[in-house]
Amino acid sequence: MKRLSILGSTGSIGRQTLDVIRSLPGQFEVVGLASGYNIDLFAEQLNEWRPAVASTEGSLDILKSLYGFPCTWGSIADVAVYGDSQIVVAASSGSSGLRPIMAAIEHGKDIALANKEPVVMAGELLLERSRKRNVNILPIDSEPSGIWQCLRGEAKKISRIIITGSGGPFRRRAFQELSSVTPEEALNHPTWRMGRKITVDSATLMNKAFEVIEAHWLFDIPWENIEVVIHPQSIVHAMVEFSDKSIKAQLSPADMRIPIQGAITYPDRIDNKDIAGLDLLSLGSLDFEEVDMRKYPCFPIALEAARKGGSYPAVLSAADEVAVDLFLNGSIKFMDIPRLLEEVLSEHKSVTDLSIDTILEADGWARRTALERFG
Amino acid sequence: MKRLSILGSTGSIGRQTLDVIRSLPGQFEVVGLASGYNIDLFAEQLNEWRPAVASTEGSLDILKSLYGFPCTWGSIADVAVYGDSQIVVAASSGSSGLRPIMAAIEHGKDIALANKEPVVMAGELLLERSRKRNVNILPIDSEPSGIWQCLRGEAKKISRIIITGSGGPFRRRAFQELSSVTPEEALNHPTWRMGRKITVDSATLMNKAFEVIEAHWLFDIPWENIEVVIHPQSIVHAMVEFSDKSIKAQLSPADMRIPIQGAITYPDRIDNKDIAGLDLLSLGSLDFEEVDMRKYPCFPIALEAARKGGSYPAVLSAADEVAVDLFLNGSIKFMDIPRLLEEVLSEHKSVTDLSIDTILEADGWARRTALERFG
Repeated sequence: MKRLSILGSTGSIGRQTLDVIRSLPGQFEVVGLASGYNIDLFAEQLNEWRPAVASTEGSLDILKSLYGFPCTWGSIADVAVYGDSQIVVAASSGSSGLRPIMAAIEHGKDIALANKEPVVMAGELLLERSRKRNVNILPIDSEPSGIWQCLRGEAKKISRIIITGSGGPFRRRAFQELSSVTPEEALNHPTWRMGRKITVDSATLMNKAFEVIEAHWLFDIPWENIEVVIHPQSIVHAMVEFSDKSIKAQLSPADMRIPIQGAITYPDRIDNKDIAGLDLLSLGSLDFEEVDMRKYPCFPIALEAARKGGSYPAVLSAADEVAVDLFLNGSIKFMDIPRLLEEVLSEHKSVTDLSIDTILEADGWARRTALERFG
Repeated sequence: MKRLSILGSTGSIGRQTLDVIRSLPGQFEVVGLASGYNIDLFAEQLNEWRPAVASTEGSLDILKSLYGFPCTWGSIADVAVYGDSQIVVAASSGSSGLRPIMAAIEHGKDIALANKEPVVMAGELLLERSRKRNVNILPIDSEPSGIWQCLRGEAKKISRIIITGSGGPFRRRAFQELSSVTPEEALNHPTWRMGRKITVDSATLMNKAFEVIEAHWLFDIPWENIEVVIHPQSIVHAMVEFSDKSIKAQLSPADMRIPIQGAITYPDRIDNKDIAGLDLLSLGSLDFEEVDMRKYPCFPIALEAARKGGSYPAVLSAADEVAVDLFLNGSIKFMDIPRLLEEVLSEHKSVTDLSIDTILEADGWARRTALERFG
């Protein structure tokens, strides 16, 4: 039995992690759960899993009235570092995961990583600490998971990484139409059911840029060796080309439970009867297209910030969180998202003494600046 | 420097093996070469590589007049077991490779395996001896090579193996037209340039059946877990689905130098500037179709013989060699190939004491019977 805690248990990845655990009885013990504001669902989860430690962003009083069992109540960081757990599933959204993830690493816990913003913000620090503490970073996101699987058993003679993206809901839209798309349209992803922030990030291709940044840090791949191609079916998640021109690709149906299970059961692979395999013949073909960068201006903006390094990636990530919020509440238009990013990044002066504190300061500055200019 | 010998150096795989070695100076020493009847090319190869031991099926007198350097002349088996070599590239065609391969295994040499008939004939014995002698079987054939690469670094929790085939030159032909196809049409393969025997075996899908048999023995996969799909582009060579529904696939351009290099440089991967990588965007899509078994009757005949075991697979392989010869010299029609196989297999009584000798006896019986009935 592996003991694990989940940060963000009521979100999309958190819920699916619990689905996987439910499908594999006797494999896992859930020792800690941390939720967002969905108190009703969290009470159900607590009643089902009875963790030793729990945390919520919602009302603790109401929660306690719904959950009668003994339990240590704490912060998300308390759940992250709780003594008994071996794996922390980092499935909260945005930059709020950064401190808890760092704390879990310092406590020697393996990180099953879905929350990509912390890696975007502080990839270098995070990976440096995980190597020092001998902690495994187990990617949950399907594209990094694909790369990770393809690299298994290989000396790292890599010539190219190819990350695929579905192209999001606007792949077939003309560039001219993008200025008028609605939040509802942006949230209507063609292949994946995901949370709201990541779904809008998929529509702008920001999510793909974040995956490039994640791949760069997690697998130590130079920027120029990472390519992105559009693959509308979302079946091939990533490919690794080795120096001898042989390519390994990872494929699976667009079902997040597959990479979640791959991360938390690593290094084992376990049969899960609740998950359907790929039907290649019904699918018929796998298509690949070039990215039209004119339609996805966020992508090159993000990559430039990532290559510049320092606190620029943290500013990128924070400004994007604000931009997506403003777009979803109707304050800005879809094509204002890249404008906001560009403006905030151009005003930023990178910090020179990079630490979690200075990175979070830059994050705060970026949020304030974005809201001042566009809120 | 790895020392290696090549059995079948003047054939398609032999020549391409020497191309790879030429592209990677300082990595290999060619210590032995064994050729077929192409004396002129073999003399050129001897002059270029100056092996310590050589063998030919052609005229030794003529060869000696073309090659003036000191060299031990022997049989193909002498080349296979020559003391100094570490790897034997088994690239001869048909059943003639069986004894030399077994001899090389007994002498503890790793086998870079292109010649699949010996595995079809005597897979169980061959693998059993290679395990006993702690010898690596390094697959050269692109589909087994693909499986082998996908399995690297994985515990063998395999739910399915998918082997792809281009469908050969007759993929788009109607079943009714197949009775009248000519040898020239059968030799016109859409994606691979290969020797004559294997090209006709691709047109009948016999080659794909042989790969299923090879995969069964090399990787210890149950028959029912191996599938074949038609993939006209010949880019994805094989896929492995693990028990957790994650699939790894191996892709590369249809260039045999890639799996050849993968076998002889194993476990390294080396950059070879002479070999072009895959251009996924020019390719655009990868298609997969079901096999129409009515068009490829050799396939189920072969699989049934393989599942029955004993000396049936050896009879299958020998009868197929005769059938392909008879088809190429115009004695029988294309759709007589499965008829010949069925007739010879139905007359065979499997031997019970399976050994290389009894397998080769069954092979001889099958050749005589096939020629008597159809020659």
